[in-house]
Amino acid sequence: MLFLIGLGLGNADDITVKGLKLLQQSSKIYLENYTSILSIGKNELEKVYGRELILADREMVEQNADVILDEAEREDVSFLVVGDPFGATTHSDLLLRAKERNIKTQIVHNASICNAVGCCGLQLYKFGETVSIVFWEIDWQPESFYDKILANKERGLHTLCLLDIKIKEKSVENIIKNRNIYEPERFMTVNVAIEQILEISKRRNCQVITPQTKGVGLARIGADNQLIKYGSLEELKIFNFGPKLHSLVIIGDLHPLEHDLLCNFSS
Amino acid sequence: MLFLIGLGLGNADDITVKGLKLLQQSSKIYLENYTSILSIGKNELEKVYGRELILADREMVEQNADVILDEAEREDVSFLVVGDPFGATTHSDLLLRAKERNIKTQIVHNASICNAVGCCGLQLYKFGETVSIVFWEIDWQPESFYDKILANKERGLHTLCLLDIKIKEKSVENIIKNRNIYEPERFMTVNVAIEQILEISKRRNCQVITPQTKGVGLARIGADNQLIKYGSLEELKIFNFGPKLHSLVIIGDLHPLEHDLLCNFSS
Repeated sequence: MLFLIGLGLGNADDITVKGLKLLQQSSKIYLENYTSILSIGKNELEKVYGRELILADREMVEQNADVILDEAEREDVSFLVVGDPFGATTHSDLLLRAKERNIKTQIVHNASICNAVGCCGLQLYKFGETVSIVFWEIDWQPESFYDKILANKERGLHTLCLLDIKIKEKSVENIIKNRNIYEPERFMTVNVAIEQILEISKRRNCQVITPQTKGVGLARIGADNQLIKYGSLEELKIFNFGPKLHSLVIIGDLHPLEHDLLCNFSS
Repeated sequence: MLFLIGLGLGNADDITVKGLKLLQQSSKIYLENYTSILSIGKNELEKVYGRELILADREMVEQNADVILDEAEREDVSFLVVGDPFGATTHSDLLLRAKERNIKTQIVHNASICNAVGCCGLQLYKFGETVSIVFWEIDWQPESFYDKILANKERGLHTLCLLDIKIKEKSVENIIKNRNIYEPERFMTVNVAIEQILEISKRRNCQVITPQTKGVGLARIGADNQLIKYGSLEELKIFNFGPKLHSLVIIGDLHPLEHDLLCNFSS
């Protein structure tokens, strides 16, 4: 049987009681570490869970899923995912392959940034489509996420921006030359995300999203040292949010209660 | 200190390890039971947690919040919420009042239907604004949620529809006469939600949301007996989803992977 277990956000004890039970009855435990990552590391998780974890990177999951599924055919295997198991497409794909092979699966849900973002005071039902912002390269600067933020803002809705994570990625040169050399890990900060957003506003001469537009920067949500900061994009762009992971909300129309709650995070 | 602890969806062991620890160190434990409700009852939760729970209904939380906060000023108090603590406005309000009184708070996040809905195979980042559908009365049949579904659909986005829950509600007559007589509990089914949606389509002669529009009906998500059914609104309208709670998704544009995953739930 294959258990897809959400770890939630933050610490080792954010796993659910059910998740911990299933993990401990498993023969093998994989820890997915490329779509998201906890502030604490593999070692601390192993200490708390009392079990050895196998790091599963993108190559392993996308190219060798059958190895995991072969094991799950014979014994109980846990696949741990930061947040909720359905935050990323890849895990849906693993589930589909398991179903095709008639391997039983069980899902253990948990918090993800998509609902935990409510802790800043913004109401979840006032969020529109979520967007992902990727690191720009010199010759690749996608802007499609910006149109989605605009479309949400036109309807008065907030936008949750998920920020890029680069773990075990290869450069184009190394892919072409088929070399297993990986780039250093990178996590997009709130600051870089806002720089890219305001750069698009400038290019388009857009008056809807400007340096005065209000936003919320979030860092390490769910962890003991989480940080939330409400302010204009101009203010947030130069604020130091500290270590990974960061997220950003571009605010739509504010309800008075939302405003009152946000003010806790403005100083 | 006030702990706002999410219980997740489904069973007693869907609480996180952190949540269970904080609950057990609390002097008093309130169980919120009006914005959502677990399939299992208070008694089973008490058995598993080994602690007595105090049911907190809407009146208590909205009118007597100060009683809870007085206690939290002196000792550790837990306030348990089905799903994530930020699913409903009321809990944000409780948090704001605690902050105004300088009472320390800690949030324990958990899964909510807003992210667990991903288990049907639809990608979370392809959802637009979430809507709530309330029970229609003879003289009160709001349609504003319908416009939001349409606006999502125009952008190719899915819509999560949260369905009405009536717990310990008074009739207008009993409110006027100030009588503490409560109406029977009611939970909107997928079937009733679709009836109301298609009634609006008929009134408006709308060709965008029709009996052939595809949707997903979800019941008891996170519980052992959860049920997911994919089909046309016409099919889902007459399907028996069983006991509470139900939710509904109106589908926008489908990615091929989403389609493949949904097909697991079409028979």
